[in-house]
Amino acid sequence: MDPNDGRRLVDAARRELQLGGSITHDPARRKLFSGAVAAVGAVAAGGATAQALEVPASNRGPGRPIPEDEYGQPSRYEAHVKRRRTDVLKNRQNFSDWSMTPLQHQLGIVTPNGLIYERHHNGVPDISPDEHRLAIHGMVKQPVVFTMADLMRFPSVSRFYFMECSGNGLTDWLKPASKTVQQTHGLLSCAQWTGVPVSTLLDEAGVDPRASWALAEGADGSAHARSIPMKKLLDDALVVYASNSEMLRPENGYPLRLFIPGWEGNVCIKWLRRLKLGDQPWHLRSETARYTDPMPGGKWRQFSFDMEAKSVITSPSGGMNVTRGPLEIQGFAWSGNGSIRAVDVTTDGGRTWQEARLEGPVMDKCLTRFRLPWRWDGAPVSIASRALDSTGYVQPTVADIQKVRAITGFVQHHNGIFPWDISESGEVRNAIA
Amino acid sequence: MDPNDGRRLVDAARRELQLGGSITHDPARRKLFSGAVAAVGAVAAGGATAQALEVPASNRGPGRPIPEDEYGQPSRYEAHVKRRRTDVLKNRQNFSDWSMTPLQHQLGIVTPNGLIYERHHNGVPDISPDEHRLAIHGMVKQPVVFTMADLMRFPSVSRFYFMECSGNGLTDWLKPASKTVQQTHGLLSCAQWTGVPVSTLLDEAGVDPRASWALAEGADGSAHARSIPMKKLLDDALVVYASNSEMLRPENGYPLRLFIPGWEGNVCIKWLRRLKLGDQPWHLRSETARYTDPMPGGKWRQFSFDMEAKSVITSPSGGMNVTRGPLEIQGFAWSGNGSIRAVDVTTDGGRTWQEARLEGPVMDKCLTRFRLPWRWDGAPVSIASRALDSTGYVQPTVADIQKVRAITGFVQHHNGIFPWDISESGEVRNAIA
Repeated sequence: MDPNDGRRLVDAARRELQLGGSITHDPARRKLFSGAVAAVGAVAAGGATAQALEVPASNRGPGRPIPEDEYGQPSRYEAHVKRRRTDVLKNRQNFSDWSMTPLQHQLGIVTPNGLIYERHHNGVPDISPDEHRLAIHGMVKQPVVFTMADLMRFPSVSRFYFMECSGNGLTDWLKPASKTVQQTHGLLSCAQWTGVPVSTLLDEAGVDPRASWALAEGADGSAHARSIPMKKLLDDALVVYASNSEMLRPENGYPLRLFIPGWEGNVCIKWLRRLKLGDQPWHLRSETARYTDPMPGGKWRQFSFDMEAKSVITSPSGGMNVTRGPLEIQGFAWSGNGSIRAVDVTTDGGRTWQEARLEGPVMDKCLTRFRLPWRWDGAPVSIASRALDSTGYVQPTVADIQKVRAITGFVQHHNGIFPWDISESGEVRNAIA
Repeated sequence: MDPNDGRRLVDAARRELQLGGSITHDPARRKLFSGAVAAVGAVAAGGATAQALEVPASNRGPGRPIPEDEYGQPSRYEAHVKRRRTDVLKNRQNFSDWSMTPLQHQLGIVTPNGLIYERHHNGVPDISPDEHRLAIHGMVKQPVVFTMADLMRFPSVSRFYFMECSGNGLTDWLKPASKTVQQTHGLLSCAQWTGVPVSTLLDEAGVDPRASWALAEGADGSAHARSIPMKKLLDDALVVYASNSEMLRPENGYPLRLFIPGWEGNVCIKWLRRLKLGDQPWHLRSETARYTDPMPGGKWRQFSFDMEAKSVITSPSGGMNVTRGPLEIQGFAWSGNGSIRAVDVTTDGGRTWQEARLEGPVMDKCLTRFRLPWRWDGAPVSIASRALDSTGYVQPTVADIQKVRAITGFVQHHNGIFPWDISESGEVRNAIA
């Protein structure tokens, strides 16, 4: 199916929701790039061609030989592409910390393993796969203990899913604090995860029909744990040992983590060592003091697991400089509740919106890349994107969110529309307000 | 669409082709794993559970803190997972060499960038993206020269495609030479490639209607070059700057390579510096002395670009040891001429075949993972897989290939069915014959 076929449905949803701004569909946007070569300065005068066709130094002698065996590394010219800690909330310690994915440099939907964001609460443990065990106990017919070798004999699945920290964007609700999209949205990654459905392993233990929650606990220095409803565990949760075809990286849970598709990253317990079944949630510190959302009237919302539809423009984005002429607006959209049906982009501060092209495969609970050819004429503008998912949900503005939730302190679950301003000089800046 | 829905069509194709061996579809194969926990030794006696639930050392203190910025690396326990040179044809020099992907450790369809196979003819050049240029000249209306910055302004696409060297398997046609699937099939990788359609760039230059071929040349020390038909360039060829969301690795063509979906890897010219359009092929050394196929009667076939349908079992595979009980047979199938419609697996040396489960998304010219639950009872067996693609083509045996081609010397384009023997002791060995 063409990923853009959801269009009519989306248009209906937009009408029903009385979304502001007119929508245009311009199949001929590629015209923008007709003759782009002139605009981007690539027309070669005779001299330039001759110069470009001169044999370069790299053609004149041997390059680096390859070693006997090797794990390849990025080019030295790409050394700026790294995971980075927040530049807003500086820790003086770094045991409970996080590092963020450079989304402005992520050109496809899979995040390379070396750049997958990570959050930990007491450092990254060093666990031998030969020593690691997963126990399933509590309200089961028989407790079971799996070695890694046991787990890898079971029928496995590999699925593409995004993962996002519920705290993604918490520094940038009401005024700009972070500069780049790595800092505003980089607690977000996407990979093909490989492992065994939790349901398969629960079958082995035999679930007590009264069991309705499970405690998942990690083998790290914080013993990070969460209570998770059995319904979701049995639906699509996985115990994963690999991301992007290779064994998990240590900071991403090696050798084993829980993966709960579409839900906040902190329930995807890393270094998973046990699942204990029970008939109520545990109300852990991670469920009372953390990972809760302030609501109007001083109440707090617990167990707000799902990550609602969201999108962001990654190019142009904060910290970049653009020059006049044709360029491609690019970004990501994702929803914890289904697949992305459409993404609208505004280049005039929300007055009008154009529908972006979605790149296939558009998968459930996975990053979807959107692209829109555009020509920047040098005038100051504000650009933003708006995602619509397969449930009909439309990404809200921060003002929309404020109507139903309290935005105070370090608030989680920020899925608001996120604007970037482009100044007359071409500088791109965080414009959240 | 369920990737397994092509089944009826495939059955018809099999009948028409009078393929040997009966085919079984057993939707209840998961039964094999019912009670697997006992078979894999994971049932926990009371003592074992208590032991497994003891708090491990990693829970008792802080782990490694994260640095200010970082490019993540694999666990030290995974140091054996590397690209490796062939262990059959040892070079005394290593400027014209290759290193192979560890497919036995590749658990999903995307090959991590650090493990993508690579072949070069005079080492790996070190090219600054600021200095690199792509020229398009020859039979064009106006020659054009692009900088990397120019190219990255154009509307881009990201597509999942396999890439395979035409020499993949050349040491193992008629008798076993290589031990592992990394050595027999590791000149094969798969990634999401990002770049600009060649057709877009040719539009900028303006193609002379008489142009029917293009010369593509790299900026490396061998000036590796190939002649490529314009029809394919205009159809789906890309100029790519990224694999798996990040800029190409140096050994894979940084900062720019040609990518020709479904065709032999050597035409995907790395370090691409020019495309020259003409009205006939150039008959380069890489088209007369290399990359040609011996045929019966002493003739040689030129320009045999496409990689025909193929598959291989990656687990269990050569060098592994299996133990009795349930396990999952896993492998990859791919076709340069379309998508994979079905994979059959035999565990009795070709007497009978069972249809494996294909894992979605099943994409055009992309690796497809297949899986089949199985129980090894300890008797010696021979296992193999057979791919069927969307054109109706069925992966042949080496004997089938010998009927139409000459197998002599280092023959390219080996897409024969590839068996592994499992001995009574559980040792898995290359069984090509």
